[in-house]
Amino acid sequence: MNRAIIRYILGNVLKIEAALMLLPCIVSVFYNETEGMYFLLVAVLSGVLGIAMTIKKAENTVFYLKEGCITTALSWIILSIVGAVPFVLTGEIPSFTDALFETISGFTTTGASILNDVEALSHCSLFWRSFTHWIGGMGVLVFLLAIVPMSGGSNINLMKAESPGPSVGKLVPKMKYTARILYLIYFALSILELVLLLIGGMPFFDAITTTFGTAGTGGFGIKNSSIAGYAPHLQWIITIFMILFGVNFNAYYLILFRQFKKAFSMEEVRAYILIILAATGIIFVELLKSSMQVFDALTHSAFQVASIITTTGFSTVDFNEWSGASKTILVLLMFIGACAGSTGGGIKVSRFITVIKTVIKEINSYIHPRSIKKIKLDGKPIEHEVIRATNVYFITFLIVFSFSVLAVSFEEKDMVTNFTAVAATINNIGPGLELAGPSQNFSHFNHFTKYVLMFDMLAGRLELFPLLLLFVPSIWKEFLPCKECKKKAS
Amino acid sequence: MNRAIIRYILGNVLKIEAALMLLPCIVSVFYNETEGMYFLLVAVLSGVLGIAMTIKKAENTVFYLKEGCITTALSWIILSIVGAVPFVLTGEIPSFTDALFETISGFTTTGASILNDVEALSHCSLFWRSFTHWIGGMGVLVFLLAIVPMSGGSNINLMKAESPGPSVGKLVPKMKYTARILYLIYFALSILELVLLLIGGMPFFDAITTTFGTAGTGGFGIKNSSIAGYAPHLQWIITIFMILFGVNFNAYYLILFRQFKKAFSMEEVRAYILIILAATGIIFVELLKSSMQVFDALTHSAFQVASIITTTGFSTVDFNEWSGASKTILVLLMFIGACAGSTGGGIKVSRFITVIKTVIKEINSYIHPRSIKKIKLDGKPIEHEVIRATNVYFITFLIVFSFSVLAVSFEEKDMVTNFTAVAATINNIGPGLELAGPSQNFSHFNHFTKYVLMFDMLAGRLELFPLLLLFVPSIWKEFLPCKECKKKAS
Repeated sequence: MNRAIIRYILGNVLKIEAALMLLPCIVSVFYNETEGMYFLLVAVLSGVLGIAMTIKKAENTVFYLKEGCITTALSWIILSIVGAVPFVLTGEIPSFTDALFETISGFTTTGASILNDVEALSHCSLFWRSFTHWIGGMGVLVFLLAIVPMSGGSNINLMKAESPGPSVGKLVPKMKYTARILYLIYFALSILELVLLLIGGMPFFDAITTTFGTAGTGGFGIKNSSIAGYAPHLQWIITIFMILFGVNFNAYYLILFRQFKKAFSMEEVRAYILIILAATGIIFVELLKSSMQVFDALTHSAFQVASIITTTGFSTVDFNEWSGASKTILVLLMFIGACAGSTGGGIKVSRFITVIKTVIKEINSYIHPRSIKKIKLDGKPIEHEVIRATNVYFITFLIVFSFSVLAVSFEEKDMVTNFTAVAATINNIGPGLELAGPSQNFSHFNHFTKYVLMFDMLAGRLELFPLLLLFVPSIWKEFLPCKECKKKAS
Repeated sequence: MNRAIIRYILGNVLKIEAALMLLPCIVSVFYNETEGMYFLLVAVLSGVLGIAMTIKKAENTVFYLKEGCITTALSWIILSIVGAVPFVLTGEIPSFTDALFETISGFTTTGASILNDVEALSHCSLFWRSFTHWIGGMGVLVFLLAIVPMSGGSNINLMKAESPGPSVGKLVPKMKYTARILYLIYFALSILELVLLLIGGMPFFDAITTTFGTAGTGGFGIKNSSIAGYAPHLQWIITIFMILFGVNFNAYYLILFRQFKKAFSMEEVRAYILIILAATGIIFVELLKSSMQVFDALTHSAFQVASIITTTGFSTVDFNEWSGASKTILVLLMFIGACAGSTGGGIKVSRFITVIKTVIKEINSYIHPRSIKKIKLDGKPIEHEVIRATNVYFITFLIVFSFSVLAVSFEEKDMVTNFTAVAATINNIGPGLELAGPSQNFSHFNHFTKYVLMFDMLAGRLELFPLLLLFVPSIWKEFLPCKECKKKAS
């Protein structure tokens, strides 16, 4: 284990968080709020600690998958712990567990909140809360990759552990360059949404925090009613941008380089759009049946489908009141999630395409046992190893999911609450159903449940394995200052 | 496609069903019931049809996996359709859909009932209903294998499609001999349970129907209160036999041949016992918390855990009233199911062992990327192909499950009812929770939902693929009397 490089990167993460925390300070100055002082204090402490950790450079920059995963998982945890402190200091979220839940929910772009009254928060805290989505969305480490100079091949592993989805795609050979392009697309789309929301008449503070929530597919709102209070045309802008941020960023890259045909023939993106249309269609009909107005039914069904499949989690309506079929569709969308290589969570559309093709192949193998046709995606055969990894991912997901539901069930809530609370956190969505529904929040869960759900949020965002690795004892033995370990490390 | 052999086997299935249907006729004579006439009528018709279909022997006895799967699936469907007719004719279940549901539930050893008042049925109908469990349990086709002489190697495929679980094990090279041994064990265990129940003081008719329900891991009771009305010592006998019928029959085979050490070291059986003990322990504590008496809590927790994990579905209590944690454990047990190579349903313990080992291996591969350790079961490495098939099975199961829940959700019932109704049928258990709970029955579902659940019962019992094959259009094209097909068939 290359402990020096892990220390060095985590130090850089702290320095960057310190820098990012200056933004809420500026917001507090603007709104004349004293809460900004606490953000400044934490920023300074975080910065000092970060500098201390990075004074000594790592001599050995060799960096394997193991180090990449550990670093990614620890980065997210450290970011969240430090990011939670200001909420406690300002007294706005007095319980550290709650503050940590809120911050993990932010950085993992989940958007599940423990706040009973969001509107009571200061502007700088609201800003920081939404800003964590934006930071988390694309991943601090992709960000880091573009800024902290690191040696060539080593970045691949970090990228693999970090990128949201199975295929961030080797867009261009140089990882640093790729990271910058992804970052640029993210930035440009965010600016575009912000501008459109402003043109649409949304106040600036609302527009920027909503943009953060959309871009990171996070879902923290600054109103108790989430997005319900905004005009329909603003809701439609948000709907469209939620969908856009759920698209595989490779598509934008291809468009950027004028490969339109290739971009529009991406199977994953087509399937993603198809699922959105189908789900919206069915829910639209279901809403009409419940005698909702046509335009309202279309707005709400499209908004909610986009919000759930992209794992954003904004709401314009309490969908917990919808019909059983509508709710079941939304729960299924929770698991499907957005495209790989987007900022969204969930299992990812491309993984579903892969497994459905695997199942079809299996059925065909009963008819033609000697057929050796390979499964293809976008015309190219999918590597055997990718199929295997996808299958294992599904099963690992299921096991983590089942154990989480069991753990949560000891708090005597109804089964739909338990099931959807876990589904909404492990898929990084935010609201579930019943007591975890959009008109509720997560404050009423006990501490044990909250820690289980925090684990789920991190597990979902980090694609399971980097977080699970932290539970392997042998990993920690390598961190102990024992003789043998030092020998190995040197 | 060898259509002749399929026709020939299905004809034999009809003949056997005709013979088996004579038993309820005898019961009706004994109880002086006129309903037996209808059973006799259907038996004669089924026998005549069977004879007509088997007059011409199949010249070509070559038989591949495809034919095996199709034959198995069609056998179950034909058995159920014919077996449902007497219920309609006697007027005891006037709706054919309901009668078919009840019979599929019987032959697939599910035990989900549409009867509001079981006790209103005639003895011969009650007998036939429970008897379908016993027939279904070990599989009519294993039965067939031991009786209908067929050529050597061809049986393997039928066995593979039929046997309950991933590893029926090549106990002895000769398939026919194996089938006889399995059948013998099944028979002996059944007799043993019957005798013990009789010694325990259970009336003969109750004892034999309960034995049928236990042996087939079916769960149809002849009382509206299922097993709740019997004395605790009888409940304990049933608990033990449910657990015994959920054990991999390979273990009994090994014991029969005095390989005790090998039998008691089978990983699957150990895991199965461990899961039962752990689940019983937790539910026992939960029941004590709800201030139940110690002995009652032990009896009910052990009975219900055994009933659910073996997918039998008997009940001694309305577990829908239990705590959230207890119910969640029962739902998880529904999916785990019994051992492979037993009469139980569910996904099977051995599949879970395999996938959990796969996940552990995956986590280790992050630490030691170049390790090539193989996953082992009972000390022997599991074939790569078995692991792949297990993964695909899980995922196919999930897809079928999700679509079924979605289909059922259009009938506006609560989500727990929908989820557990599908779980209880696809895993061949019987009762679920809420409106599908043990104090309820399936009569209130609409026809569409009932057909979805019938599909699930068949899919679960036939290990998915044989049934899914029936939905491949190219399979049916081969049945068309077109020129090209005839050429192929000849």
